[in-house]
Amino acid sequence: MPESRPDARVGVWLVGARGSVATTVVAGCAAVTAGLHPPTGMVTESPVFADSGLPALSSLVFGGHDTVDCPLPKRAEALAAGGVLPPGLPSAVAAELAAADREIRPGGPAAGDTRVDAELIAAFASDIRDFITRCGLERAVVVNVASTEPAPVGSALPASSLYAAAALHAGCPYVNFTPSTGLHHPALAPLVESSGLPYAGRDGKTGQTLLRAVLGPMFAQRALTVRAWSGTNLLGGGDGAALADPAAAAAKNAGKERVLADTLGTVPEGEVHIDDVPALGDWKTAWDHIAFDGFLGTRMILQTIWQGCDSSLAAPLVLDLARLTARAHQAGLSGPLAELGFFFKDPVGEGPAGLAEQYAELTGLARRLRDADGPGGRAHDSEGAQ
Amino acid sequence: MPESRPDARVGVWLVGARGSVATTVVAGCAAVTAGLHPPTGMVTESPVFADSGLPALSSLVFGGHDTVDCPLPKRAEALAAGGVLPPGLPSAVAAELAAADREIRPGGPAAGDTRVDAELIAAFASDIRDFITRCGLERAVVVNVASTEPAPVGSALPASSLYAAAALHAGCPYVNFTPSTGLHHPALAPLVESSGLPYAGRDGKTGQTLLRAVLGPMFAQRALTVRAWSGTNLLGGGDGAALADPAAAAAKNAGKERVLADTLGTVPEGEVHIDDVPALGDWKTAWDHIAFDGFLGTRMILQTIWQGCDSSLAAPLVLDLARLTARAHQAGLSGPLAELGFFFKDPVGEGPAGLAEQYAELTGLARRLRDADGPGGRAHDSEGAQ
Amino acid sequence: MPESRPDARVGVWLVGARGSVATTVVAGCAAVTAGLHPPTGMVTESPVFADSGLPALSSLVFGGHDTVDCPLPKRAEALAAGGVLPPGLPSAVAAELAAADREIRPGGPAAGDTRVDAELIAAFASDIRDFITRCGLERAVVVNVASTEPAPVGSALPASSLYAAAALHAGCPYVNFTPSTGLHHPALAPLVESSGLPYAGRDGKTGQTLLRAVLGPMFAQRALTVRAWSGTNLLGGGDGAALADPAAAAAKNAGKERVLADTLGTVPEGEVHIDDVPALGDWKTAWDHIAFDGFLGTRMILQTIWQGCDSSLAAPLVLDLARLTARAHQAGLSGPLAELGFFFKDPVGEGPAGLAEQYAELTGLARRLRDADGPGGRAHDSEGAQ
Amino acid sequence: MPESRPDARVGVWLVGARGSVATTVVAGCAAVTAGLHPPTGMVTESPVFADSGLPALSSLVFGGHDTVDCPLPKRAEALAAGGVLPPGLPSAVAAELAAADREIRPGGPAAGDTRVDAELIAAFASDIRDFITRCGLERAVVVNVASTEPAPVGSALPASSLYAAAALHAGCPYVNFTPSTGLHHPALAPLVESSGLPYAGRDGKTGQTLLRAVLGPMFAQRALTVRAWSGTNLLGGGDGAALADPAAAAAKNAGKERVLADTLGTVPEGEVHIDDVPALGDWKTAWDHIAFDGFLGTRMILQTIWQGCDSSLAAPLVLDLARLTARAHQAGLSGPLAELGFFFKDPVGEGPAGLAEQYAELTGLARRLRDADGPGGRAHDSEGAQ
Repeated sequence: MPESRPDARVGVWLVGARGSVATTVVAGCAAVTAGLHPPTGMVTESPVFADSGLPALSSLVFGGHDTVDCPLPKRAEALAAGGVLPPGLPSAVAAELAAADREIRPGGPAAGDTRVDAELIAAFASDIRDFITRCGLERAVVVNVASTEPAPVGSALPASSLYAAAALHAGCPYVNFTPSTGLHHPALAPLVESSGLPYAGRDGKTGQTLLRAVLGPMFAQRALTVRAWSGTNLLGGGDGAALADPAAAAAKNAGKERVLADTLGTVPEGEVHIDDVPALGDWKTAWDHIAFDGFLGTRMILQTIWQGCDSSLAAPLVLDLARLTARAHQAGLSGPLAELGFFFKDPVGEGPAGLAEQYAELTGLARRLRDADGPGGRAHDSEGAQ
Repeated sequence: MPESRPDARVGVWLVGARGSVATTVVAGCAAVTAGLHPPTGMVTESPVFADSGLPALSSLVFGGHDTVDCPLPKRAEALAAGGVLPPGLPSAVAAELAAADREIRPGGPAAGDTRVDAELIAAFASDIRDFITRCGLERAVVVNVASTEPAPVGSALPASSLYAAAALHAGCPYVNFTPSTGLHHPALAPLVESSGLPYAGRDGKTGQTLLRAVLGPMFAQRALTVRAWSGTNLLGGGDGAALADPAAAAAKNAGKERVLADTLGTVPEGEVHIDDVPALGDWKTAWDHIAFDGFLGTRMILQTIWQGCDSSLAAPLVLDLARLTARAHQAGLSGPLAELGFFFKDPVGEGPAGLAEQYAELTGLARRLRDADGPGGRAHDSEGAQ
Repeated sequence: MPESRPDARVGVWLVGARGSVATTVVAGCAAVTAGLHPPTGMVTESPVFADSGLPALSSLVFGGHDTVDCPLPKRAEALAAGGVLPPGLPSAVAAELAAADREIRPGGPAAGDTRVDAELIAAFASDIRDFITRCGLERAVVVNVASTEPAPVGSALPASSLYAAAALHAGCPYVNFTPSTGLHHPALAPLVESSGLPYAGRDGKTGQTLLRAVLGPMFAQRALTVRAWSGTNLLGGGDGAALADPAAAAAKNAGKERVLADTLGTVPEGEVHIDDVPALGDWKTAWDHIAFDGFLGTRMILQTIWQGCDSSLAAPLVLDLARLTARAHQAGLSGPLAELGFFFKDPVGEGPAGLAEQYAELTGLARRLRDADGPGGRAHDSEGAQ
Repeated sequence: MPESRPDARVGVWLVGARGSVATTVVAGCAAVTAGLHPPTGMVTESPVFADSGLPALSSLVFGGHDTVDCPLPKRAEALAAGGVLPPGLPSAVAAELAAADREIRPGGPAAGDTRVDAELIAAFASDIRDFITRCGLERAVVVNVASTEPAPVGSALPASSLYAAAALHAGCPYVNFTPSTGLHHPALAPLVESSGLPYAGRDGKTGQTLLRAVLGPMFAQRALTVRAWSGTNLLGGGDGAALADPAAAAAKNAGKERVLADTLGTVPEGEVHIDDVPALGDWKTAWDHIAFDGFLGTRMILQTIWQGCDSSLAAPLVLDLARLTARAHQAGLSGPLAELGFFFKDPVGEGPAGLAEQYAELTGLARRLRDADGPGGRAHDSEGAQ
């Protein structure tokens, strides 16, 4: 088990590195590190993780792939104009944004690109290895925060799977924060198996599904029969446009429905709509309407309206996941990190679907990491042994 | 430890026996026993309680105190007209309603009643003992489902405390489903201590506070900062009128705020209103508006609207509590039943405030009861030993 | 201009005569006539129509076409069980339900029916004429309250158009309360023109669109810029199933969007969903989310949630329309009754789209009818004289 | 009738000149004049007022009274940080903010001020006259946009009435945009009468009451019986704190209820709460719950949630009112301007309560002003001639 140097730096390679989420990740990490803002929304900054040996926020170094050119500082200004970042933040963290921008490499394949999959994977992996070397990183994790891609048809590898394969080829843990395919492609199964790397995903749980993961168990524990659970999501930003594609929405909705099926024990009536509403900018609104039966069949209704900023909800979780996955890698964990189900709509591995149980799993992992090898760990301690 | 006969009958003495909740309890128990309806909303009918030795629904015998005269069958017809009971149910369970009605005794003190507290307590206790004898009951539990009374001023015992004292004098466990004082009066502390009886309360968690008990932990676990939590309740029925009295509402609101303080770790801004809206009949609507901060201080909002029928939400929990408390008595438990915090806004004893943790406590109790003495128990097993 | 006898009876021939709306129309008319309920929701019972010479509710005689067999009294019992009709009403108006049931004839074409369009129209018209003769009616109006049919493809006449043509052939005014084609088929234009009969439609405005017709003008008058208007409808009952067909929903949504375009002067972003949620029974919920800009581009939001019973909302308007159209026929009006736009999503003729302006048009019609020939009229007055 | 010079400048004297509304008025007028933003939310910039002879936005000169010292440019920065003004606007209109700031005079009475009412009125009137002279204004109007004051007890003149009296003494029309007393004090009746000046008020209709003024008529026109209309307002900013005072809230709520009573014809059940929630900043949320009966007594519900920025909603209306009142003064109108009821919760004079009817009154005034003397008018035309 490798020992980590006290001044070790950890890379976070973002697929979709110029998007709203990635920009908020980079700007927010710098802002919290500088003490400009408290770490609101970051689970790993709560006391339960204090001794888990997670890499410090100040040790994170950002880079990534993207297919667009807009520089991160300019992207941050646009987010500040839209109310996603506080006014003044882009200039306060301009140096960190510029530094990350320098570590972004072109994604692909671009139009006219004739490289085959293996060539693309090799090129992407090479970009990641160069990043590690150039920046003198102890290790790096790859996190997919790109726009949701359509569900793949046929056996061709979608772009998200090319990047995921590249991560493993480069020896990096992989986190899929989107509903895209990533490592979930049958053709990648042997690679996943042989790599011995930990991975996590998929599809961050940031709004409607987060609510469903606490409300579903409530109905089940109270023995109230949910008859119909209907929902509509209004999304601006790029995600709204991507998910207006029915094929892309299908992947996302499958995750939402799984949470209900798993927590309620049945699949209620009801549909989920995802509407592209550019006027909302980076904000999203989710309305849920839950028709349930009480004692003697009395019909009752719960409605919820969640109004949030998607990038602000996602970014702290991306930082959490990067830290946890890097530490898991250091601690020698491999395969699906089921204990991270707290963060995802459609978690890898076997685990509970209710948020409270998922939180218990996560805090269990915090204890295991504390007791594992590494900077904060105590190897061979009994508590976390499994 | 007493052995229970297989055909033992268990009494449920309802304080407020002619109210909407009590009427729904009696009618609903009969309807479920007869197979007319599934036990929706009854936690104790779920598999986890299958072997806990709880008294069967068919073994429950109802009686109680009330200060009004309207017969239960007539009360049930009114509830059916208002949509609280299914049409046809009052006639289908007319015999059971009439039987319970015969076991209701006048509450008090009535206007002009000159009896002092000790005399009233003795008279109430005598009513309960007579009920047990007359019906040949193995035991009985007393459950307060009367309208919320104003918070007491001075040292005089409020009516709810007289009934609670009578329960203990009669050797019966006591459950306070309301925010009224009940056993929580300093003058009753010695009696509570010396009785050796189990008790539970207070204030059933049936709507807005139920939601708060799952949403509060969600915000805390996700490290999202709740800035303000505001709420308005619209209540018809008698409860709306009772709680329009600021003194009565104060007791109820204290419980609601305690849930937030305990789950969030801070007390957010915001008020709670309880409005009497007779036009709503037995239905209530609770709107909650939660302003919270995400990453970098981004302001977000969750709103919930709960539309339920209070009596339908309360009645199955009353049956759950009667069964659990009777079984706890049989198993020799005494003092505050903190494991029943799942049911209450302001639970007795020490316990968690989040619903998921409370459910874990409750299922722990289910296991302990399974292993305890009694019809379904295995005495001296190790798992439930304390 | 025909004089009406004081005891004249007026027929209301309902296409879809065994549906929820029709059943509520028949039961409700009887209940209000008998004084069992006030005429809540009936515009024509308000004072402004007092002298307009409308046929009395007690003079209305019901019949119609339907393709299903369930007798009206049985249908009414089902509606009472679902809370649409008050408990006890079906038995209180059993005679009127049975009378209307005897006047229902099979619709069509049934499977295997080989009749061509002209034969079907002739058969339907003959049914209507027989009804008028058999019941000794002064006149009859035909109202389409059948389930929404898919938007027609090609030039074939859909069923709703066959019934509409039959109405005109039988000399009856026609009201289309649904978004189905009805008289709006090019092939019927010559018949409509030559018949000289008044007609009205289409698609009753009973919930979400009713709200849009008052909120749209509010935004326009206040010069607030609506950026996006999104909506979701949850419908149980047969209508939900019919509108889950995208082709059927398309017709309905066109009407909803037209109201926004006409009142706002622009077409905002946003979609409208219609979900079939059988668990809701005859109830529907419509959620609207309106993102608008205020001064200096400040972003604001209005949301509305409408929870109503479709049949209860539609039935009084059907009675209003039957009375108004019968009176318009008597008064010699012909062609599109644009003044009835108050009732419809997609009104015939030219008229305003805002509800307040439509109401002014309607009260103008009330005055014109008062001054026209007929029982309450003053013959030979000039049209607009007041 | 005075002729207006083409380059005439018109003063707008704001009582509460350093508050959020006043700051938004000054900054917004400059921004729209400079073409930085469209005049969203300004009714007087719509085509119907094109020929009414209103003073141009570029001709408005701002000054006022306030008891606080914070300079307008600094106040504007704070509003931009809170999202009320666009980022960048305060610096873009810094000159106009500074100019207005120089015309603000101390309000009163301050603590220790021993001046009696007549002295205060004289001093305030002198401030206004000096403003007119110093700036070479053709005329000025006084608009109260100060925080709501408690309803007065006894006969003492509240501060709002001192300012209102000063306006009349200085020969200026007066607009009360708040629920404070202003000119509505019995002691001011003779002055109001003798001044011959036009005046308008009171309490701008910017959110919940605006909605009520369109929804109330909808229920009335559709003959739907409103059983209960309940509401909760969550306000941050200074207004929330002021209205948390029950005496201040009482004045505001009276206006809200009047709208319902006038449009529905009855007073439904239900309360209105105004909560101070500082976490909301300048934003407010209003939830309304309307329980209504449909046909045969079926119970239905409409809920509305209005999320707006109070200052952004109020400021364009203040500009509208200043222009309309200045033009009315020029055109020789005097007394209560009932045609401005469109803007107010509790309008002066006699007029309709529904928004659509109020809008018709307002456009009628636009026509009258077009035809009146003055820059855009045609003297001696008859009132309705077009």
